[in-house]
Amino acid sequence: MTKGNDVNHVITALLENRRGVLARVVDLISGRGFNILSLNVAPTHDNTLSRMTMTIKGDDHVLEQVTKQLNKLVDVVDVSDLSQKRHISAELLLIEVSATPSERAEMAKLAELHDATVVCVHPNSMTIQMAGELDKVEDFLNLLQEGQVYELIRTGVIISPRDGTVNSEQ
Amino acid sequence: MTKGNDVNHVITALLENRRGVLARVVDLISGRGFNILSLNVAPTHDNTLSRMTMTIKGDDHVLEQVTKQLNKLVDVVDVSDLSQKRHISAELLLIEVSATPSERAEMAKLAELHDATVVCVHPNSMTIQMAGELDKVEDFLNLLQEGQVYELIRTGVIISPRDGTVNSEQ
Repeated sequence: MTKGNDVNHVITALLENRRGVLARVVDLISGRGFNILSLNVAPTHDNTLSRMTMTIKGDDHVLEQVTKQLNKLVDVVDVSDLSQKRHISAELLLIEVSATPSERAEMAKLAELHDATVVCVHPNSMTIQMAGELDKVEDFLNLLQEGQVYELIRTGVIISPRDGTVNSEQ
Repeated sequence: MTKGNDVNHVITALLENRRGVLARVVDLISGRGFNILSLNVAPTHDNTLSRMTMTIKGDDHVLEQVTKQLNKLVDVVDVSDLSQKRHISAELLLIEVSATPSERAEMAKLAELHDATVVCVHPNSMTIQMAGELDKVEDFLNLLQEGQVYELIRTGVIISPRDGTVNSEQ
């Protein structure tokens, strides 16, 4: 394995809404020592299916193994690594940052410059909601100082093919 | 169990970043037949911990059982049901909807009215990014017609106490 090639792969799969499917998927991935950075699973417009999106750190070999293993599960309908194709990806964060009354304006401006929204103001902190692509999110977080973040809650990335699912098949 | 009391509980927990923790949590919840509607897990500002947020349908008894079971796991640091307290919650969605060239303007307006953004325009569809509270998201989805949604990708809900984590302890 070429460790130098380690990148974040975003793997997305449709899961049948049957009992225990998510547990089997997570068991399979983490049981083989793959490093799941983030994972989310939620309903789709088809109420028999859920969509799972996972960010996994690893080289192409790791990715190939994960995809192969997932495809073996009967309740996993469709597996793909969209991070290597043209895509739209986004993540949502709720970030509580320190902000005394005199620091509020500057922090609110910083949030605004990153298309983020102040959703709650506390006596000495603020909660900011931000949605966007990973690079933009990282830019914002990097501007915050060590110790300034009291709480960081992230959904993990979701991803969609840039060409559209329907049109690309036409 | 009083089925009439079934509501969506949003349970959040901090997990130690050790191998297999997520698998044990998911096994425990789904193995007992609890109905996980959505789940997400992602890094926090503390790199030894990840934050997991789960939406589970059930009555107060179900919730109590889930919380009790999670608290038994040594790698689960903190479990709480914030949905019963003052909170901020939000979810991110990527929605591909049908939209012919003549329908684009109307769909873009509908998105705008819900603080959603058109992130990609395809020949006969559009991809819309939306972040917000569940009620607002549902309002938007309910306005779309049967068959109009080609793809619906959701992160699942994240939640934060409205009073702030730090200030509430002071």
